[in-house]
Amino acid sequence: MRQFVLLAHDAPTEPDFSLDDLPGAGRLDLLARCITSAFLLSHELREDVRLWLVIRDRLTIRFEGAHLQGLNPDERSTAALVGAALERADEAVGHEPVESTPGVYVSRRTLEGTLRDCSGEGTLVRLHEEGPPVVELEPPADPVFVLSDHRSLTADEESLLADLAHESVRLGSRRLHADQAITVAHNYLDTAGYRRF
Amino acid sequence: MRQFVLLAHDAPTEPDFSLDDLPGAGRLDLLARCITSAFLLSHELREDVRLWLVIRDRLTIRFEGAHLQGLNPDERSTAALVGAALERADEAVGHEPVESTPGVYVSRRTLEGTLRDCSGEGTLVRLHEEGPPVVELEPPADPVFVLSDHRSLTADEESLLADLAHESVRLGSRRLHADQAITVAHNYLDTAGYRRF
Repeated sequence: MRQFVLLAHDAPTEPDFSLDDLPGAGRLDLLARCITSAFLLSHELREDVRLWLVIRDRLTIRFEGAHLQGLNPDERSTAALVGAALERADEAVGHEPVESTPGVYVSRRTLEGTLRDCSGEGTLVRLHEEGPPVVELEPPADPVFVLSDHRSLTADEESLLADLAHESVRLGSRRLHADQAITVAHNYLDTAGYRRF
Repeated sequence: MRQFVLLAHDAPTEPDFSLDDLPGAGRLDLLARCITSAFLLSHELREDVRLWLVIRDRLTIRFEGAHLQGLNPDERSTAALVGAALERADEAVGHEPVESTPGVYVSRRTLEGTLRDCSGEGTLVRLHEEGPPVVELEPPADPVFVLSDHRSLTADEESLLADLAHESVRLGSRRLHADQAITVAHNYLDTAGYRRF
């Protein structure tokens, strides 16, 4: 399985944002593109993918490829799925998630809780625009890619990642947006073993 | 220079579409993502890129990285740039382009005209989800990637590409959306010479 943990520093925790201004809603445009990049292929959905959207270290929305329904490629409808999850956040008690739409689960879970759960399930790889290029990394069987939105990590997040991440890499020679990094990470794994110029 | 020629089969030729329903406006959501994927890096713009958006074989909107201003990462504001170009399309006479916003030019130019101009400037590479994987292609110095929106090419377009394209490849083992293909194509060129597993 491929997993992505996406840190959202400015995203709303309430559903009262405007679908007409996603950049103004804590860069929900970027977060929506990350979600679609993680799951959608041309005429196909990657079922073997899980994405954790960790909002302000308070709420986590989990997207499960095996159960997802109603995910379309555009930003607006994807942001609406996030909004539907936020509508149900009040019902999430303790660590128990609430399913807001098929394959989307919201819970009161911190970054640390999410990362500790994931690290038991695979190799935690931090995708970071200033990390070393991914030339020496043999693609792990069950990668958990950790990446940030448009913000740098806080000191606390840096320290947590330093403890928990197994690798820190960037995927090319240029600094990519988070959604582009997800697309390239998938392609890197899809084409493992290809020779290239 | 890297160029992209993007065939839009259903996109509007008039600016009267709704920014609230980009998928319904001939998949302007996808086309907007293609434009941003072609030009935007994290905190940087790829100046050495040109993108030709060929709409219904009638209108061509050219985006010049060296002169582009006002391109943001989200779909809605990018679609608004397309709308601003369509507002000025009536002023385009013959092959003379009209600059609608800085670095965006609209003209009455067909696919064939666009491709014939580009083919003198570089290697025409068709990106096609059913093409052979890009394992044997040495990255060309001045690639012109030709790709389609959500539609397959028409018989006439197929025939034109068969005449003019130098290569036909896909960039991975999975069938990607056009915007994902642009991101991967950039990364493929950015990392030319990298060894990999």
